[in-house]
Amino acid sequence: MERKISLLVIRRLPRYYRYLGELLRENITRISSKELSEKMNVTASQIRQDLNCFGGFGQQGYGYNVTALHSEIGAILGVNKLQNIIIVGAGNLGHALANHAGFAKRGFNLIGIFDSDKEKVGQKINDCEIYDMETLGDFLDKNEVRIAILTIPRLCTQEVADLVTAHGVKGLWNFSNMDLEVSDDVIVENVHLSDSLMTLSYQLSESEKKKEG
Amino acid sequence: MERKISLLVIRRLPRYYRYLGELLRENITRISSKELSEKMNVTASQIRQDLNCFGGFGQQGYGYNVTALHSEIGAILGVNKLQNIIIVGAGNLGHALANHAGFAKRGFNLIGIFDSDKEKVGQKINDCEIYDMETLGDFLDKNEVRIAILTIPRLCTQEVADLVTAHGVKGLWNFSNMDLEVSDDVIVENVHLSDSLMTLSYQLSESEKKKEG
Repeated sequence: MERKISLLVIRRLPRYYRYLGELLRENITRISSKELSEKMNVTASQIRQDLNCFGGFGQQGYGYNVTALHSEIGAILGVNKLQNIIIVGAGNLGHALANHAGFAKRGFNLIGIFDSDKEKVGQKINDCEIYDMETLGDFLDKNEVRIAILTIPRLCTQEVADLVTAHGVKGLWNFSNMDLEVSDDVIVENVHLSDSLMTLSYQLSESEKKKEG
Repeated sequence: MERKISLLVIRRLPRYYRYLGELLRENITRISSKELSEKMNVTASQIRQDLNCFGGFGQQGYGYNVTALHSEIGAILGVNKLQNIIIVGAGNLGHALANHAGFAKRGFNLIGIFDSDKEKVGQKINDCEIYDMETLGDFLDKNEVRIAILTIPRLCTQEVADLVTAHGVKGLWNFSNMDLEVSDDVIVENVHLSDSLMTLSYQLSESEKKKEG
């Protein structure tokens, strides 16, 4: 099936996936777009429109089959299978991400953490070992790794991105405040934390202006 | 001036702000939308369209005045003034955020970190003291705090959100994987890290399918 789905819809899918997962944990197996819309604070028509992009799982008058929808969206997101990931940079953010309970649950299998600080090498975070940065290329040649999480200082990030992609990594989850240059077959997802904080700040200013005005 | 700017445009502004800041550091004070577009990997027409939302700072044939545009976008984002922020939760993520160099630069002034772990109380992160959670309400009554960063376990987040907003906080930057219920005058910006990783995973799957197909 040929389909072209906008990145905007894609960015909403993880949220559907999360909510549907919560419903399943509460043993709710059927839900109407109206109920889902109230729970998620999105309009029902938005929900129908989004989910119709994928062929539509709902049946008029019967609502959505939560189990089927959850597993289908999981498949679309590619989180229904195990994928190896590594973290480069064992600082506070690297630690926080290595301890993130949600990743393993979604099939992301952390198999190594890399740092250039020799004192950290050999330690473990959440049962995963910290290896020497110098061994990173070798490690990637021996292990199939799909995604590298980069939590390293801005200045080293491009260099590390070049290294890991030269050794087969196809996805970079980049936390440094720097836009990376990569070849066309590599996907970069940037997390610019300051950008998110500035967006919040803007919305606050607007909300205050509205009150004053 | 009455203006209604879509959140999509708003979300792109921090990126413009970042790029313009980089240009200023390189002493570049004038740039065409074409050059900016190449640097930012956005179409020139997108740039013109986005910046026209704010009245348009460019002059046909002369390009944009980088200094003016940077300071204007800063003002729009509300990052041209000092705003007090606190962090609730001194775990790894709280540590990472407290050490984030970019916040202070953008006027976000961290004045307190709160944790319920008595062993952490009294320690400092990046010169900012960790206080006892029990003193949080008092602290907020004595200090004007605009934004609270919540890096606490999912189960406590709503409770803490209720507490800080009852004591005057108007913006919540929420890192727990949980959608908060707040009153209409409170703005919540959620950072769902797993969602971002799943979006990356989806784009990878699509890119692989394209290659195979």
